[in-house]
Amino acid sequence: MEIVLRKKPKNPIIIEGFPGLGLIATISTEFLIKHLNAKSIGYMWSKDLMPIAAVHDSKIIQPLEIFYAEKENIVIVHALSDVRGLEWEISQSLVKLYEMLKAKEIITIEGILSKSETDNIYFYTNNASKKKKLESISLFPLKEGIIMGVTAGLLLKDKRIGMVGIFAETHTSLPDSKSAARIVEVLDNYLGLKIDVKPLLDAAAQFEQKLKAVLEQSKKAKEFKKGKGIDYLG
Amino acid sequence: MEIVLRKKPKNPIIIEGFPGLGLIATISTEFLIKHLNAKSIGYMWSKDLMPIAAVHDSKIIQPLEIFYAEKENIVIVHALSDVRGLEWEISQSLVKLYEMLKAKEIITIEGILSKSETDNIYFYTNNASKKKKLESISLFPLKEGIIMGVTAGLLLKDKRIGMVGIFAETHTSLPDSKSAARIVEVLDNYLGLKIDVKPLLDAAAQFEQKLKAVLEQSKKAKEFKKGKGIDYLG
Amino acid sequence: MEIVLRKKPKNPIIIEGFPGLGLIATISTEFLIKHLNAKSIGYMWSKDLMPIAAVHDSKIIQPLEIFYAEKENIVIVHALSDVRGLEWEISQSLVKLYEMLKAKEIITIEGILSKSETDNIYFYTNNASKKKKLESISLFPLKEGIIMGVTAGLLLKDKRIGMVGIFAETHTSLPDSKSAARIVEVLDNYLGLKIDVKPLLDAAAQFEQKLKAVLEQSKKAKEFKKGKGIDYLG
Amino acid sequence: MEIVLRKKPKNPIIIEGFPGLGLIATISTEFLIKHLNAKSIGYMWSKDLMPIAAVHDSKIIQPLEIFYAEKENIVIVHALSDVRGLEWEISQSLVKLYEMLKAKEIITIEGILSKSETDNIYFYTNNASKKKKLESISLFPLKEGIIMGVTAGLLLKDKRIGMVGIFAETHTSLPDSKSAARIVEVLDNYLGLKIDVKPLLDAAAQFEQKLKAVLEQSKKAKEFKKGKGIDYLG
Amino acid sequence: MEIVLRKKPKNPIIIEGFPGLGLIATISTEFLIKHLNAKSIGYMWSKDLMPIAAVHDSKIIQPLEIFYAEKENIVIVHALSDVRGLEWEISQSLVKLYEMLKAKEIITIEGILSKSETDNIYFYTNNASKKKKLESISLFPLKEGIIMGVTAGLLLKDKRIGMVGIFAETHTSLPDSKSAARIVEVLDNYLGLKIDVKPLLDAAAQFEQKLKAVLEQSKKAKEFKKGKGIDYLG
Repeated sequence: MEIVLRKKPKNPIIIEGFPGLGLIATISTEFLIKHLNAKSIGYMWSKDLMPIAAVHDSKIIQPLEIFYAEKENIVIVHALSDVRGLEWEISQSLVKLYEMLKAKEIITIEGILSKSETDNIYFYTNNASKKKKLESISLFPLKEGIIMGVTAGLLLKDKRIGMVGIFAETHTSLPDSKSAARIVEVLDNYLGLKIDVKPLLDAAAQFEQKLKAVLEQSKKAKEFKKGKGIDYLG
Repeated sequence: MEIVLRKKPKNPIIIEGFPGLGLIATISTEFLIKHLNAKSIGYMWSKDLMPIAAVHDSKIIQPLEIFYAEKENIVIVHALSDVRGLEWEISQSLVKLYEMLKAKEIITIEGILSKSETDNIYFYTNNASKKKKLESISLFPLKEGIIMGVTAGLLLKDKRIGMVGIFAETHTSLPDSKSAARIVEVLDNYLGLKIDVKPLLDAAAQFEQKLKAVLEQSKKAKEFKKGKGIDYLG
Repeated sequence: MEIVLRKKPKNPIIIEGFPGLGLIATISTEFLIKHLNAKSIGYMWSKDLMPIAAVHDSKIIQPLEIFYAEKENIVIVHALSDVRGLEWEISQSLVKLYEMLKAKEIITIEGILSKSETDNIYFYTNNASKKKKLESISLFPLKEGIIMGVTAGLLLKDKRIGMVGIFAETHTSLPDSKSAARIVEVLDNYLGLKIDVKPLLDAAAQFEQKLKAVLEQSKKAKEFKKGKGIDYLG
Repeated sequence: MEIVLRKKPKNPIIIEGFPGLGLIATISTEFLIKHLNAKSIGYMWSKDLMPIAAVHDSKIIQPLEIFYAEKENIVIVHALSDVRGLEWEISQSLVKLYEMLKAKEIITIEGILSKSETDNIYFYTNNASKKKKLESISLFPLKEGIIMGVTAGLLLKDKRIGMVGIFAETHTSLPDSKSAARIVEVLDNYLGLKIDVKPLLDAAAQFEQKLKAVLEQSKKAKEFKKGKGIDYLG
Repeated sequence: MEIVLRKKPKNPIIIEGFPGLGLIATISTEFLIKHLNAKSIGYMWSKDLMPIAAVHDSKIIQPLEIFYAEKENIVIVHALSDVRGLEWEISQSLVKLYEMLKAKEIITIEGILSKSETDNIYFYTNNASKKKKLESISLFPLKEGIIMGVTAGLLLKDKRIGMVGIFAETHTSLPDSKSAARIVEVLDNYLGLKIDVKPLLDAAAQFEQKLKAVLEQSKKAKEFKKGKGIDYLG
């Protein structure tokens, strides 16, 4: 997998969130990019990624774009679409990125299936002092659970990197921006980001509605692409 | 991917349109080929393309044919069928073609999902003077959106090439020749082609009907091919 | 793709027909093999062909068998089953066969989707004198259409070979032996084969019925093979 | 494909039957193994075979096991499960086995779709004296038919090997042990095996019932495996 | 397949159980790991494994983790999820592990389809003294049956290793923790583990309920992942 960086921050914190349960990681990372006013500094590429680009704020976004919030010295890795089949490869590239930038830690965000009706946020870390800090902001250590995807790939390599996993319980299969907003709140506390989270929580309902509309249209587009396949020259 | 050129225009504009949303790009490029009386000058080939040929005006058309309108010095790349799985490869070949011909710019056409009821045409470009020109013909700059396919592949390489993307909003999953006709109108303005667009807009309804009939028969043909698979020797 | 020939006719005409629309090409080539009393002279083989053999007149027929009508100096390539995924490879092997035997021409047969209610037979050729001849027997030149499969592969290589395409309009997704019989009539005229075509046209209805019965049983066989997969040792 | 033999019979007859129509070949070969008290002498292996083992009479059976009836000097190749995708490879290995053991002949068994209500057994052979012998035991020569699978692979290589094909007509998609029993009867006649076939014919109905029960449970097992995929650690 | 061991026990017994029928093997091995207080000593890895991690007791568990119960000198290989397509590879790695550690024996656990209403536990072994021991604890030798998966791979290599297969009959496609508990009971007898099995049998009903809840949620998660695939940047 190709890593292209136009800028190489020194010792940043890396936050990554890939499309997973409740799209929680994707929504959180997007909130952060927006509210920290993070700028693109590069991307990761593989021919096995879906050929998809986003236009955001008139700029072209790569399928796997790397953003940087300079003031906070935070690198955010953001994915536009599902990366099924590439999870091991991507987690290896994230470790490589971590080593290239001599990152302080890598924070991985994922939704987790709730076995009950609770709405807790859990953490996992392989570092004792980080553990203290996370407990002090009222997070529960994750004792039992199943994690899938890129986050699983990272957790399984945690000997080599300083890692923190933040997991929000979700009960729904639809995009869960409430849980995502709560993750942003947690990161705000953990990293002292000074984000005004109130607008996030208020915007949650509005945002989910927009999402559902887009997902519905995407679905229509995919159905159309499936049916078509021949030209109408005539 | 093989590129075969029997003629090498100098510094042309390249217009490409692949089967995508609303078949808008395919319909637009076909109108242009017809009305600019463009001639075949070559093709691109890969064994992973669908084995499909068109006969048009008694001539055989390649799955990925390259046409040339000499008077206007415009190269048009036209695809007969879906190129799913080959999008990165094709966008790389288009950049190679751009470099081979030292093209002035490459115009990529695609449909875009509309989040509202509007019917706007948007543009994207990485060149300031082109931006001015496009705004002057009443196009909106694309600020937010998702693009898929070959066009996405090109947008993601836009550092290397002078690129203009023209995007028509579509709401339908059926072929949208009205939007295609409007794209042709835009190109006519942008490139000073002097195409009489009135027939295009009048023909739109007629054309869509023909398309629907062909798509229906193609579907029947595919269903038949699926069911069959054994000989009836006897 | 392996080509095995036990006999190498000099300058023959090659006729090929692969399972396609309406099974027209397959039915035509079989009629010809039968009525010209053509004998097997070899075959083409690839491990990607379906493992299928036919027994016909007590002889084993290869999935892709090459027949030869000595008196008429006609080579007929005949396929037992669908060759999806191998179309480019097969068309390249047919060109190789053409060059090996220094053939006079290669005639490719295919069904074509009709956009209207007509039942015409069309031709395509890259040779002016053949064009004259085909028009003289009341065939229409194909101006517009979509061709798929091995025939498409051949049409797209027509610079290297003397080619004639014969296309029968079909409206049905079921085997269309009436159209196949009419193709045989056309070939009879074009090549002066002196086949008594009356029995063909009379037998058409009878033949289609037999085909439908076989196709139905084949379908049952495939369904069974799908469900099975374990042994019953006990 | 690996061939492992612990014993190398001299000039045996090889009988092979793979899961095909009506499971006729599999059932026949199993009857033979049981009634000739054949012992395992080796196996064929490829990593593309399904990972499946049978326990029979407390012994482990390979997915593709080779048995030997010493008194009759008959080698029997037996498959536990479907070998789709490996048919050409297996038929090549069978020819290799034939050559390794300098076999007298290879007998291939398969079900064949009946176009009528008959229940005939047909033969195919490339050897004139065997032809006489098979006709003398009231078998019909196969003149017309479609054969699929490993048997097709062998029939298509019949120049290199002395081959006899035995085909039983079947009308059903369920396991057809009546037809299998009749094949065993034929082999008993053809090879002078002196098997008491009466118990086979009586046991037919009983056996089919057992088979149906096993196939039903296998289906349930496969459905379960499909649905599962995650652990329940907790 | 990579084998990583942080500790190399001498001459252990290896117990392995992969997700199969009734999830019996997985449930049994988990009970053992829990009640023998086994610790992780390594893992096996291949990029073709599903990217999945478990968190258990606050520790990260690999998709294919190797545990060790020091007091009993038992190595337990445990899989988190389905390993379809990797069965041959994994069974070869287990043989390699066996040889690396000079294991005394490898015990493989699997569910087996019951042809009747019985609930027996069967064994298979290639070692006469082990056979005696297993019969003495009231197990039936497996005479007839079909085994699939990693266990099949091991059984087919049983010449190289000292092997014991323990098979529990199951009738259900749902997780069968009652049968799993009985397997643990058998292992307890066979290996003199002194596990208090009463809690296991009491907990069976409770455990199955929890499992069904988790499986249901996993299913929901997979459905959601399937539907999603596009970002909602906006």
